[in-house]
Amino acid sequence: MSTLRTLVHDEATAALPRLTPAEAAVVRRELAELAAGESGGGLFEQLRKLAAAVPERLYDDSARVLLRMHEIAGSGNLQSNLSSLSTVRACFDLGLVGGDTPPAELVVGRGHIAPAFYAEHYVRGAFPFAPLTTLHRGGLTGVVHRDLGFGNTMRYSLGVGVHQAVGLAWELRRRGDGRKVVCLAGDGELQEGAAFEALRFAHEADLDNLVLVVDANGKGIEPLAKPVSRDYLAAYLGQVVETDGTDDNAVRDSLEGLLAAPGRAALVCRTLKGAHSFRPPSASGAPGRPSFSQTTGPLLADRLRRTKRQAAVFTADMAARFGFKDHLPYVNTGLAETLSVGLTLSLPDPTLKVVATDGMYYMDSLSMLTEATTGARNLLVLAGKSYGQWGGAHNAVNLLGGLLNTRVYEPVTAAEFQACLDRLDREPGTAHVVSAVDARFEPPGTDCSDDLDGAVWVTPPAPGRSGTAVVTFGYAGVLVAEANADLGVPHLHCAALEPELPAETVRLLAGVERLLTVEYNGVQGGFGERLRARHLLDAEVHGVRGDILTCAHAQQLRRHGMAPDQLRALLGASAPSFAEGAAKGEEVRGAAASA
Amino acid sequence: MSTLRTLVHDEATAALPRLTPAEAAVVRRELAELAAGESGGGLFEQLRKLAAAVPERLYDDSARVLLRMHEIAGSGNLQSNLSSLSTVRACFDLGLVGGDTPPAELVVGRGHIAPAFYAEHYVRGAFPFAPLTTLHRGGLTGVVHRDLGFGNTMRYSLGVGVHQAVGLAWELRRRGDGRKVVCLAGDGELQEGAAFEALRFAHEADLDNLVLVVDANGKGIEPLAKPVSRDYLAAYLGQVVETDGTDDNAVRDSLEGLLAAPGRAALVCRTLKGAHSFRPPSASGAPGRPSFSQTTGPLLADRLRRTKRQAAVFTADMAARFGFKDHLPYVNTGLAETLSVGLTLSLPDPTLKVVATDGMYYMDSLSMLTEATTGARNLLVLAGKSYGQWGGAHNAVNLLGGLLNTRVYEPVTAAEFQACLDRLDREPGTAHVVSAVDARFEPPGTDCSDDLDGAVWVTPPAPGRSGTAVVTFGYAGVLVAEANADLGVPHLHCAALEPELPAETVRLLAGVERLLTVEYNGVQGGFGERLRARHLLDAEVHGVRGDILTCAHAQQLRRHGMAPDQLRALLGASAPSFAEGAAKGEEVRGAAASA
Repeated sequence: MSTLRTLVHDEATAALPRLTPAEAAVVRRELAELAAGESGGGLFEQLRKLAAAVPERLYDDSARVLLRMHEIAGSGNLQSNLSSLSTVRACFDLGLVGGDTPPAELVVGRGHIAPAFYAEHYVRGAFPFAPLTTLHRGGLTGVVHRDLGFGNTMRYSLGVGVHQAVGLAWELRRRGDGRKVVCLAGDGELQEGAAFEALRFAHEADLDNLVLVVDANGKGIEPLAKPVSRDYLAAYLGQVVETDGTDDNAVRDSLEGLLAAPGRAALVCRTLKGAHSFRPPSASGAPGRPSFSQTTGPLLADRLRRTKRQAAVFTADMAARFGFKDHLPYVNTGLAETLSVGLTLSLPDPTLKVVATDGMYYMDSLSMLTEATTGARNLLVLAGKSYGQWGGAHNAVNLLGGLLNTRVYEPVTAAEFQACLDRLDREPGTAHVVSAVDARFEPPGTDCSDDLDGAVWVTPPAPGRSGTAVVTFGYAGVLVAEANADLGVPHLHCAALEPELPAETVRLLAGVERLLTVEYNGVQGGFGERLRARHLLDAEVHGVRGDILTCAHAQQLRRHGMAPDQLRALLGASAPSFAEGAAKGEEVRGAAASA
Repeated sequence: MSTLRTLVHDEATAALPRLTPAEAAVVRRELAELAAGESGGGLFEQLRKLAAAVPERLYDDSARVLLRMHEIAGSGNLQSNLSSLSTVRACFDLGLVGGDTPPAELVVGRGHIAPAFYAEHYVRGAFPFAPLTTLHRGGLTGVVHRDLGFGNTMRYSLGVGVHQAVGLAWELRRRGDGRKVVCLAGDGELQEGAAFEALRFAHEADLDNLVLVVDANGKGIEPLAKPVSRDYLAAYLGQVVETDGTDDNAVRDSLEGLLAAPGRAALVCRTLKGAHSFRPPSASGAPGRPSFSQTTGPLLADRLRRTKRQAAVFTADMAARFGFKDHLPYVNTGLAETLSVGLTLSLPDPTLKVVATDGMYYMDSLSMLTEATTGARNLLVLAGKSYGQWGGAHNAVNLLGGLLNTRVYEPVTAAEFQACLDRLDREPGTAHVVSAVDARFEPPGTDCSDDLDGAVWVTPPAPGRSGTAVVTFGYAGVLVAEANADLGVPHLHCAALEPELPAETVRLLAGVERLLTVEYNGVQGGFGERLRARHLLDAEVHGVRGDILTCAHAQQLRRHGMAPDQLRALLGASAPSFAEGAAKGEEVRGAAASA
């Protein structure tokens, strides 16, 4: 099967009910074409071939295509894509996209505007429609990737594109290649220190082959405090040209001019951007249950009101993830995680210092965090944990747990979250890292709030039986409890990454035939391995082993073996009565239902 | 015993032979005074009292005092202290130091110029002489600390001072305190993205109470590529005033003016700086053995010459640590670790990408490193490892080992280092992190170069005996081999943080009465815990557990139980014939020598 068919077949088929009749008809034709032929070449080449084989275009305006892609996906960053669309068109018009010898190299630093390129490829006849229906659902990625016609691939960091562009400019000069590098950046990512380091280097190394195109929409996730400083850009890039970033011709002409002129430059495109995250119209009426991380802001606000505690809350543009807005005063540092930590260092000891952002982004601030964990008292790190479309790394929590003077928890109930704050009050010299899961779930009936560092039996062991037992960390406990609902495997839940288990519990766990640990978290140095290392328990460690993908939560669960049927199979694998069916989760479920 | 006496007695006594007769006489009087009285109050208060009790001054020029401190210490950053001396004097003259209600708050961002303050305190009668003789030797720290009269404490990061100052300015405004914050920064640290984030925030949050004083000596460790950009400073700080930073009066008057004027400002002090690290004159004639990390540059250069390999070498001002100079072309990114990683992202796959800096500093780039370890091929991370005066963190290697697609090694011979590079050639998709120890030692006769992922017996087990055995990681193997020279404890050496041990070796280790692992490395998530987790070996894990101190290598070894006599005691603890003496290393050594 061709790479393209593997990538899109299942998801495009699943999307059919969400398509218009005309779209569905085209997708069916494309899928049929894919099934018929064995297409060679790379993914990008296969896309071109399929588009040539089914040339009919449903839309001729890429803005319209973008809207449809997001409606079909049900999530994404539509407004961000729209704000850069004129720039994307300019890149196509100037031959910077997809050709073998472009007149300049293009680095897309605004990594999540990949869909704008897909949409433009579509209307220009180079992409088929079917892949567009798989965006964010395991098919096309929302961030740029070399396999999809981009010159660069991005996985994690914001700000990485500026580094890629400056590194490439350096390399081109070293090779004697006289072409320039065009870097598309957002005004939000330019707030990051990483981007500064790259621009300063371009100046200090006299790289005269860099054109930084800034989508100045005045917004990260929230509005920027001030517009990107033109004086700052001029200090390092020399020329700064401004243009109307919503006018295709103006952007193209300005960029063309800067490519032809000598030297470094910045092109500031004034644009507009609506809400950061796309929400389908149907979802806007009746808001569903908030994610667990979104409940932490209101919980924190309520606690501060009750205790009249002095607090300072810093976040690198992530207030929405924690439900801070309208609940809690906070300081948005912009996209600058290191700063959100650094601002805590000089505050009075008794002040509760909250730094809130994605667990992943902290990975560029671990040195500053170490400074804070050793120097600041009453430090609460709210580490949003998402394996969704953007952010999250399977090992982030473990790395945070590797810092000096920290304790890491992953609460899954309001009471557990409060217990984390109680514990910080009792032990203000230890930084408390709270992994706040970006997932929506029914809070479990049992939790560790009475014994945060200990463990609680969700399903207690039956006397005399010693088959399989499972120990879980944080959110995995919710997933396992669901999978285990009618299996009855003894299940011990922990909120602490490194729990303090009573000796009798350890003896019990050491005595079972098969011990499992489950964590929705990186295996290496994580919960299960810590239990093995500490207590020499011979546990099978189930957790995240591979790299994360840029796909939505539900797909991530399956990819990492955390979907309910997969967990059922895992738990049931050694239970004699389920032994055979356990290899296939569905059969186990069927057997249980008929029993 | 008073805090002050505990801090200085032993080291000041040890320093006596290095002092002039006049200095020694004063130190003896001060020590006698310390022994006589039970001084209360904090450390800074005790210093003042002792200075008042022994008021005689040996010197009246703080530059001369600084020179003597560094001659006595034998190491340090004399030139850096001298380049800021006029600024330090200005801070004293304007009442910013040591008082209870200073007219402005002082944050010393150039953390390692603490000695300039000690020297100035001394000539102004507030510090005794004895503590000055303990600099970098376990007494006075080279970096600023609240206990020593500073408003801020720094432990790790460069650039952290700017964060502390901006955070404090934010807090003062929030409190309605109208005073300003003066931040002393170096032009080198302003190269860091972290400093940019803080200055940008000061602008965006309209903090009008910050005066950034820049020691513009044009040098980090190496000369800066270009002077700090005044345009950049002006973009975020508004006013930029320049002055002759070597003229006490000029600096004082300028700073006084900016404190009185409204608004944010930068004061750029043009200064001069000699060599970054102080070397005593006696050491300059006959250079000793280079540290292991300093040998890696020449080894790498030789290899590249032999293989005619295309390479790109980036370092954040750390070329000297690796002996790159005069051996290897490299790009100095300035003090910008994230950039040194980011520049590798766009290079061609076959290019060998070397990023070289301190293992600690990488902790602010782990997200960018993850981008590189997943996206770049042929990536070699040279992570300098020092527990000396500056840099190094006990957990840095473990955190690097927690990244995706990495293997971590700590070679201690040239052959092991080459084996790391051979391994990278064979497996270019895995980033190879090489912990390069900043220590001078005789290379051991046995190494893992034939089996880098395995282990080698330095002292093989004798048939039939199964008392104690010890397994070591990297540099700890050198230390243990020395301690074990005549103890004969079976000693297995590994160069890999996570070795792949043959089943028979694991069985053997599982069978001994007492199994020890030793690593000069953080215990948590480190070598020993990984062996426990992986093979369920019941090993006593000996390694670094506490925070590192800002003192020289030899003191660090003892602090972490890695000095030869300490390791002898550890190894001998269970050997029956040494059982009693083992509690005190010295006695064991005596017993062995007389046997």
